[in-house]
Amino acid sequence: MSAKRFRSIKREIRVLGVDDGVFTPHAKGEVDLVGIVYRGGYWFDGVMRTEITIDGLDATEKIASMILDSPHYAQLRIIVLDGVTFGGFNVVDMKKLFRTVSRPVIAVTREKPDFDEIEKALKNLPEYEKRWEAIKATGEITEVRTRKGEAPIYMQVAGIARKDAEEILRKTSTRSNIPEALRVAHIVASGLTKSKEY
Amino acid sequence: MSAKRFRSIKREIRVLGVDDGVFTPHAKGEVDLVGIVYRGGYWFDGVMRTEITIDGLDATEKIASMILDSPHYAQLRIIVLDGVTFGGFNVVDMKKLFRTVSRPVIAVTREKPDFDEIEKALKNLPEYEKRWEAIKATGEITEVRTRKGEAPIYMQVAGIARKDAEEILRKTSTRSNIPEALRVAHIVASGLTKSKEY
Repeated sequence: MSAKRFRSIKREIRVLGVDDGVFTPHAKGEVDLVGIVYRGGYWFDGVMRTEITIDGLDATEKIASMILDSPHYAQLRIIVLDGVTFGGFNVVDMKKLFRTVSRPVIAVTREKPDFDEIEKALKNLPEYEKRWEAIKATGEITEVRTRKGEAPIYMQVAGIARKDAEEILRKTSTRSNIPEALRVAHIVASGLTKSKEY
Repeated sequence: MSAKRFRSIKREIRVLGVDDGVFTPHAKGEVDLVGIVYRGGYWFDGVMRTEITIDGLDATEKIASMILDSPHYAQLRIIVLDGVTFGGFNVVDMKKLFRTVSRPVIAVTREKPDFDEIEKALKNLPEYEKRWEAIKATGEITEVRTRKGEAPIYMQVAGIARKDAEEILRKTSTRSNIPEALRVAHIVASGLTKSKEY
C-alpha cells in the first residue's frame, strides 16, 4: 500500500490520538488504551478504548481492531500515537497498522527516542527479535517544531509524506506542542482508566 | 451562603460538566460519574471520576467529594450537571452541592423535566420523601435558548442569578445547544465507563 497523499490538509481534519493508561511497569496484566477523536485541533468528537497486555505483543492488532470497529472510522484521516510502545514494551508495528486500517500513522514523542536504550530493554523480553524488528521498521526520526517558541517534538511516520505529516502536526497542535487529540487522550487515559494486574 | 455574583463572565471561564455512564436501570450496583473540565467552550482541561449507587442517595456527597478532591477545584467557577438525577433516581441536592463546594450549580436538560412523572417513579423507591424534597428544592425550570436556530434547553440553578447562568450557558455552548464540558462528559462517560452491577 503506497503512502496516502494529501492534496490539502483541512483545518478540521479528523485525528485519532492514542495513549495508554496508568500501569505498574513489568506487571502481568492488561492496560487500557484510549483513543480520542478530534476535529482538527479544536473539537472533541469521540472516544474509543481497547486493552493490551503489559509488555505483550498485541498492541498493533488491538489498536487496529479498535479503529476498524469504531463508528468514527470512516471519518478518520490520520492516527497519532504517543510513541511506538504502549503498556511498557508492547511495540506498534506502524507499517502494519497503516496497512490494516488504511490510514497514515504518526508516532509523536516529546523526547527523542533513544534506540540503544530501547534495544537494551527489549533484550530482557520474550520475542526480542520481533519487537526490535518492529521498532527498527518505524524508521527515521524527524524533529518537528509545531509551535513557535516551544520545544520541538519528534515524529516517525508510516504511509504519509513527512511534509504532510509535519503540516498535520502543526495545524492540530492548537494548545500545546502536540496534537490536541493526543494531549486529551493522555489526560483521559491517565485520569479514567485502571489497569488489570494480577 | 448567598448566590455567587459574576461581575463579568469570561470567555475562558472554567466549567465542570458532570454526566453518568451506562448502567442497567433498577440494577443493584454502582455507576461511574465523569466530570470534564473545560476552559469556556473551547479547551479540554481535565477529568475527574466518582462512583455512585444506582437509585441510591449518595450522588450529592460523591459529586462534592470528587470536586473538592480534584486538582482542578481552585480553578473551577461553575458546575453544570446533566439534570438533577444520576444513576437512575439518585437525586442531586443542588443547594447542598452549592453550599458544600462553594460553586454555583446549573442542571441542564434537553427535555423539560416532568415533575409528575418523576414523582410517580420516586414513589417506588426507598426514602421517597427525601428524594422528592431534593427534587422540589431544585426549584424553577427556565427555558434558555443557547444557540440561534437550535432547540432551547431547560435549566435549574443554585447559587447563581438566572441571567448569569443563562450567559454562562450561551458562552460555553460552542458546538451544540449545551455547554461543551457537558457534551464531552456525556461522550466520555458513555464510551469509557462500565457499571459494576451484581
